Amino acid sequence: MSVQPEQLNVTTLGPRQLKSPLPMSTLVGDGVANFVPDDMRILLNPEFQAGEFPTGPSLGTRAQDTRAQDVLAFELAGPRESIFFDPARTRAAIVTCGGLCPGMNNVIRSLVFELEHNYGIDEILGIRYGYQGLNPNQGKAPRKLTADGVDPIHHFGGTILGTSRGPQAPTTVVDTLQREKIDILFCIGGDGTQRGAHKIAAEIAQRDLPIAIVGIPKTIDNDIKYCWRTFGFVTAVAEAEKAIDRAHVEAKAVRGGIGLVKLMGREAGFITAAAALASGETNFALIPEVPFELQGPDGFLAKLQRRMERRDHAVVVVAEGAGQHLLTSPEETHDASGNRQLADIGPFLKQQIGKHFAAQSMPVKVIYFDPSYHIRSVPAGAADSLFCDQLARQAAHAAMAGKTDLLIGLWFNQLTHVPLAISTGVSKRLSSESQLWNAVLSLTGQERGGW
Amino acid sequence: MSVQPEQLNVTTLGPRQLKSPLPMSTLVGDGVANFVPDDMRILLNPEFQAGEFPTGPSLGTRAQDTRAQDVLAFELAGPRESIFFDPARTRAAIVTCGGLCPGMNNVIRSLVFELEHNYGIDEILGIRYGYQGLNPNQGKAPRKLTADGVDPIHHFGGTILGTSRGPQAPTTVVDTLQREKIDILFCIGGDGTQRGAHKIAAEIAQRDLPIAIVGIPKTIDNDIKYCWRTFGFVTAVAEAEKAIDRAHVEAKAVRGGIGLVKLMGREAGFITAAAALASGETNFALIPEVPFELQGPDGFLAKLQRRMERRDHAVVVVAEGAGQHLLTSPEETHDASGNRQLADIGPFLKQQIGKHFAAQSMPVKVIYFDPSYHIRSVPAGAADSLFCDQLARQAAHAAMAGKTDLLIGLWFNQLTHVPLAISTGVSKRLSSESQLWNAVLSLTGQERGGW
Amino acid sequence: MSVQPEQLNVTTLGPRQLKSPLPMSTLVGDGVANFVPDDMRILLNPEFQAGEFPTGPSLGTRAQDTRAQDVLAFELAGPRESIFFDPARTRAAIVTCGGLCPGMNNVIRSLVFELEHNYGIDEILGIRYGYQGLNPNQGKAPRKLTADGVDPIHHFGGTILGTSRGPQAPTTVVDTLQREKIDILFCIGGDGTQRGAHKIAAEIAQRDLPIAIVGIPKTIDNDIKYCWRTFGFVTAVAEAEKAIDRAHVEAKAVRGGIGLVKLMGREAGFITAAAALASGETNFALIPEVPFELQGPDGFLAKLQRRMERRDHAVVVVAEGAGQHLLTSPEETHDASGNRQLADIGPFLKQQIGKHFAAQSMPVKVIYFDPSYHIRSVPAGAADSLFCDQLARQAAHAAMAGKTDLLIGLWFNQLTHVPLAISTGVSKRLSSESQLWNAVLSLTGQERGGW
Amino acid sequence: MSVQPEQLNVTTLGPRQLKSPLPMSTLVGDGVANFVPDDMRILLNPEFQAGEFPTGPSLGTRAQDTRAQDVLAFELAGPRESIFFDPARTRAAIVTCGGLCPGMNNVIRSLVFELEHNYGIDEILGIRYGYQGLNPNQGKAPRKLTADGVDPIHHFGGTILGTSRGPQAPTTVVDTLQREKIDILFCIGGDGTQRGAHKIAAEIAQRDLPIAIVGIPKTIDNDIKYCWRTFGFVTAVAEAEKAIDRAHVEAKAVRGGIGLVKLMGREAGFITAAAALASGETNFALIPEVPFELQGPDGFLAKLQRRMERRDHAVVVVAEGAGQHLLTSPEETHDASGNRQLADIGPFLKQQIGKHFAAQSMPVKVIYFDPSYHIRSVPAGAADSLFCDQLARQAAHAAMAGKTDLLIGLWFNQLTHVPLAISTGVSKRLSSESQLWNAVLSLTGQERGGW
Repeated sequence: MSVQPEQLNVTTLGPRQLKSPLPMSTLVGDGVANFVPDDMRILLNPEFQAGEFPTGPSLGTRAQDTRAQDVLAFELAGPRESIFFDPARTRAAIVTCGGLCPGMNNVIRSLVFELEHNYGIDEILGIRYGYQGLNPNQGKAPRKLTADGVDPIHHFGGTILGTSRGPQAPTTVVDTLQREKIDILFCIGGDGTQRGAHKIAAEIAQRDLPIAIVGIPKTIDNDIKYCWRTFGFVTAVAEAEKAIDRAHVEAKAVRGGIGLVKLMGREAGFITAAAALASGETNFALIPEVPFELQGPDGFLAKLQRRMERRDHAVVVVAEGAGQHLLTSPEETHDASGNRQLADIGPFLKQQIGKHFAAQSMPVKVIYFDPSYHIRSVPAGAADSLFCDQLARQAAHAAMAGKTDLLIGLWFNQLTHVPLAISTGVSKRLSSESQLWNAVLSLTGQERGGW
Repeated sequence: MSVQPEQLNVTTLGPRQLKSPLPMSTLVGDGVANFVPDDMRILLNPEFQAGEFPTGPSLGTRAQDTRAQDVLAFELAGPRESIFFDPARTRAAIVTCGGLCPGMNNVIRSLVFELEHNYGIDEILGIRYGYQGLNPNQGKAPRKLTADGVDPIHHFGGTILGTSRGPQAPTTVVDTLQREKIDILFCIGGDGTQRGAHKIAAEIAQRDLPIAIVGIPKTIDNDIKYCWRTFGFVTAVAEAEKAIDRAHVEAKAVRGGIGLVKLMGREAGFITAAAALASGETNFALIPEVPFELQGPDGFLAKLQRRMERRDHAVVVVAEGAGQHLLTSPEETHDASGNRQLADIGPFLKQQIGKHFAAQSMPVKVIYFDPSYHIRSVPAGAADSLFCDQLARQAAHAAMAGKTDLLIGLWFNQLTHVPLAISTGVSKRLSSESQLWNAVLSLTGQERGGW
Repeated sequence: MSVQPEQLNVTTLGPRQLKSPLPMSTLVGDGVANFVPDDMRILLNPEFQAGEFPTGPSLGTRAQDTRAQDVLAFELAGPRESIFFDPARTRAAIVTCGGLCPGMNNVIRSLVFELEHNYGIDEILGIRYGYQGLNPNQGKAPRKLTADGVDPIHHFGGTILGTSRGPQAPTTVVDTLQREKIDILFCIGGDGTQRGAHKIAAEIAQRDLPIAIVGIPKTIDNDIKYCWRTFGFVTAVAEAEKAIDRAHVEAKAVRGGIGLVKLMGREAGFITAAAALASGETNFALIPEVPFELQGPDGFLAKLQRRMERRDHAVVVVAEGAGQHLLTSPEETHDASGNRQLADIGPFLKQQIGKHFAAQSMPVKVIYFDPSYHIRSVPAGAADSLFCDQLARQAAHAAMAGKTDLLIGLWFNQLTHVPLAISTGVSKRLSSESQLWNAVLSLTGQERGGW
Repeated sequence: MSVQPEQLNVTTLGPRQLKSPLPMSTLVGDGVANFVPDDMRILLNPEFQAGEFPTGPSLGTRAQDTRAQDVLAFELAGPRESIFFDPARTRAAIVTCGGLCPGMNNVIRSLVFELEHNYGIDEILGIRYGYQGLNPNQGKAPRKLTADGVDPIHHFGGTILGTSRGPQAPTTVVDTLQREKIDILFCIGGDGTQRGAHKIAAEIAQRDLPIAIVGIPKTIDNDIKYCWRTFGFVTAVAEAEKAIDRAHVEAKAVRGGIGLVKLMGREAGFITAAAALASGETNFALIPEVPFELQGPDGFLAKLQRRMERRDHAVVVVAEGAGQHLLTSPEETHDASGNRQLADIGPFLKQQIGKHFAAQSMPVKVIYFDPSYHIRSVPAGAADSLFCDQLARQAAHAAMAGKTDLLIGLWFNQLTHVPLAISTGVSKRLSSESQLWNAVLSLTGQERGGW
């Protein structure tokens, strides 16, 4: 990683002259929960090989030469003792963008709860249908959010605010923020949304306004950098696992049954890998990060054939972004969020499998599952509900402390402040050399034709 | 923490002269998953306050004086390039002990899969009904385990091997291991089980036998030290959340409704805290680590009354080990696992609440839930299924490499090798100063009578 | 059955001079849904033994002597072509009483939908907290219900109106109905509620008022007469099945494991029988209708012992009202709904089992489940959602047609109008000679010690 | 219905000279479950209009002229006191055919349980992969089934026996039955399977063999005649409801959102209607029995547009067999089961909706769900588990009594014996004049553009 220490520094509005209203202490040992000091950090890389220490990658240099500011480390999230915004006069707004993801309503709810219950903020607006709602020419008017009003929403999938794809001009957005007297904008969305948030923050900085922009990363693909896990991911894996289980049932119920499941994962195979492992019943997992060939003695089809000859059924899970090089490339197009349009690997693979086995005179039946919509619209499971609550409350703390142009990240299980500038624009990938991918290979035995 | 660096060192049988049969590499960058070097570590404490670095708690001393062996750090789990046991001649055994916990069958399954599929071990025994099965006078004979045989077991709660509480004499156990020619024993169980495992390892060391003892921590309470999370915990939280949701429905459906839910947590409030947060509908959470009084103006009953006056319904979640000081103490007794028998806080609290409000002439109806058995016997959810697979495979790798007298821990999200000597005998607790507990207070507002 | 034909006649307010606004026809064959004629009937007993026909029980007499009015038959529910109440001037009210049952919110929702959407009624009141809400000295004021307002409520268990136990004086209630200008009262509740509704209807008749009282039977025990199935029952069985499954997991996981599950069923064993069958994993089912002895060679304990000797684990399911004769009878008391207080068979059985096996020196472990609250507070499953919708719409049709003093029954799968006078006061039971009970015996083999 | 009374008569092998081993009685009132007499009947039509009785449709003629044998009535299922097959020498076989349906494993399990546990039959074969398994040239050898072996299978979807489509020559099948000494064949399958069973029964009759053929109807579409409900249907509706709920979430989350869900239902709209009602969130339900036009002022698209103008989101549920007349008809083809290949209404409708609103310059987003595979492969829910048990046990009773060439039907909630000759070849449909369809129209308001 070529990131420099100073790139991990977070922008803070200031000066911060108000005392937090939260009933916390700065004293360790008094039994009262602690404010988190502003200079609390977690190392970017706490792993090292014993021989190398203390000159390992986490320190970047020999320790004896190290000053704290030279160390690669993230700022820890958490409530700050001194805050920037006066709760009595602060107006916050929340916007949700992009595709659905389990937990969006949980995040909205916990933001409102934290701001109203604990900070005592009365003015919270819900922006309607994504960034469109910040463009008066396109959007519907915001709705007022209250703790009572959002009380039951976490039982529902989707987002009560509505969502849309695509950015709005930063100048338009900041005009709206100024006109509506919005002091804090929470942006719940994926990479495109956070890039948009970064541009909004830049425009705010340009105008020198005391407005905080705080991102909460939302990507069901789990592919945002410096976020070990994003909300909705665990729920998505649980739903994806169900589809794999069903594919397994179908595959075993007929002679030559091949259950083929396409899962989310445009650039990253995390859902595919995790669901394959969680189900425990996958024989082949195909992900964008690990290219594969169809043909030839080591190609996927030959391996699948070996599995079928031995077991007469198989389950194949493929991420939507896998094997794109195999598909006749249409001219490259993008959706409103700026995502590259993918060719559809699912039906292609179904057809290729059919063709291959027909040529071998081995009758197979491919049962194809495309469960993406079934997955992304469910309410958050317990693990994500808990995680969303934590993300939202830390986002509220960050914003109240005047932190801006950042998102709430997760690093080695600790919530952090990550500058938008370094987290956006390039996605996290699943390394083929990682223990996670090795676990997939161990489970499936796919390199050897499946167990 | 007063642990010393050398206490984190793991015992390894040796010499290791065999090459692992796993198709992995030692080369970073070749696209092939990597063996984990034996000297790979993760810092015990990668967090620091900037001003303090590099003399923070993670390093224990000024960095310029630091040598690698002086640093507090855990050995990372993972497949080793050189192994101790010859797969062709190795006989492994698996034992499950203590109370049920979601995921036990997943762990068994993945152990068998990894040993048979990837290492090529043919001889795997399932010990019946806990440590009893290693005592020929008490136990049923072991059953042979195969990958095909364990294929569907993860769809079921419980453990196919059966379980029991309580230890067996280490000499008896080691006699059995020798007689049955068992080279590796995987011990799936809680603190008592791991203490037993440690004594077995000591007896093995005493006899100088090449037998590996590898623990996989199982505690639905999530209270084993150096394990940030144990398997089954997330599933338990999800089930506990359902009980809280139902208590909420009941409480709202009648005038003066108080839903009271007792959850697991003998010494630690993790399930209670996490389920309270996940449900988002808890007004009071009571845990063993945070003592509380019933009476007085700041007592629980007065706070509950303030909530009832304002909202006319409430949800109270209490860990089984909370408030023990309030209960008329029976003489202290212990169960077969050595756990202290607790007095039952649930019915006590129900009665006290009833009495209090009767004295106030405020009619309330307490609806009491005791869902522990409903929670612990379910199959693992997706997140735990995935986690169990990882734990089991790392346990297999550790054992094959000759690591012994250890358990597989989780530290800042990385799987580690933790010597049994330091992980057992004292349980992990939820600090009242932690962000997790602060989140509970933020959600519930319980210090102020509930939101 | 000693019911007389005229007892099945339903009271109707009249004259009915308005045409239904529903877009239906009276013509069979035009493809348009049909109004149901007022004289449409279903035989009380359409089963007969060939030799007996046509003098079988369904006809009550020799057919050649039969006139229609002499035949035992129920009026079929359904929309009527002519109605009594003018939608533009009608005010309806809904009250929910007694314990929670899955589907109450569905019934409320579909009542509001049918009345507002299809009949065009604007004035619909939700009475708060049961019959209390009709007593101005006790109750909270009613809330207005609209189709938009009730739209999401079926996703939640419980009742948005709140509930309470116990009756109010019919004179008080009718005073309230008159004062609030309520024309129709829908009473959702069990036997006590319907008895109350009957008394209210009697008071209305006494005062000669044009007010309709329509009951929708709610009994999770499924024990209301002339109702083959009541709403919530299928959902309750599904939840009860889960408890049995978990008891089975627990029982199999230890030596001598006995899973003991207490289910709802004060007077009737329907939930116990159905859940035992649905789970397929019950070895003994004990219900109120089939008395049993504990001791002796044919007693329950001896049979359970035979099962344990052969299989070493067992699952026992017991209805709360079973075996009451075995319990030291406290003086008979009743709850506010008039239900007899039962002694608690669950802990008693647990203790007796423990004692019995201790005396035999057979170590067993009884794992006891009491899931009633877990069961009754869940949202309705799909089958009940569908059923609740049908019940509610037929109740609306009945009321609009001026039918009163009746409840909506289910007879051989057809929805019917049942006079409250004959349906209340005596509960439906599960006959030990029925095919359903025989199925339980076939599954469990419990007469022979369990399979 | 033009069915004649004698067509409802069931073929019975005879003479029946054995006493049933079941511990039942013929005495009503002794508390012991009763054998069902062979001449027990349920009227085909127990409904009548009072004025018409007793000359209503159920009796077909004036009652005074009626003899029992002239009455349209089904034989009731149930255990018979005298049986045909000697359990000690009987070999039974089970075959599952056609597409997957929740509950197939439950039926297999309960058949084995009833035959082995209660009748004491030792020889039970599972035929592999449908009727193919009865053709020695195509099939895999049968597997022996035991109560212990099938114990856990109801927890899994699919069929442990495997399935296939298409018939085998009756002569081949009967040759196999004779060679394998199979006395009873249980055929679990849909209309094609039961037609096949009828032909096998005819060939058996031709050869005058004492072999019983008993069908258990399996159709997830619920379209088999004289079966008010078939197993798996309720589970399918519950799963379909989930898809509709998710479509609703998606539709509401974006501007102009239209959730479009295609469900099973080739010829019959039962799943669509029931799931629409169960979800309570459907705005348009389209079924094969109710033709519709797309274009024109009363066409579907105009109605959908009115809904969108008013509400900006909609949920449309369409049965796969709906609107086939709208699709460019490919040449008619059939699958191996003899089912007509349908053109795919789902994508067609998606495209037409898109085109229509584009022409109106109303931006909409159609989110399309095709959940059929997700639905049919799940394990049976509680209601179906219970129902499958009953169906299977009654099938066993029928077979043991020598009943043949029949299937187990459901008529007004009673299990019956239905001759295969009258139940096959023509499917059950959902009448547009029925209360069920009327309920759909009431809920959706679709005739008026949706509520």
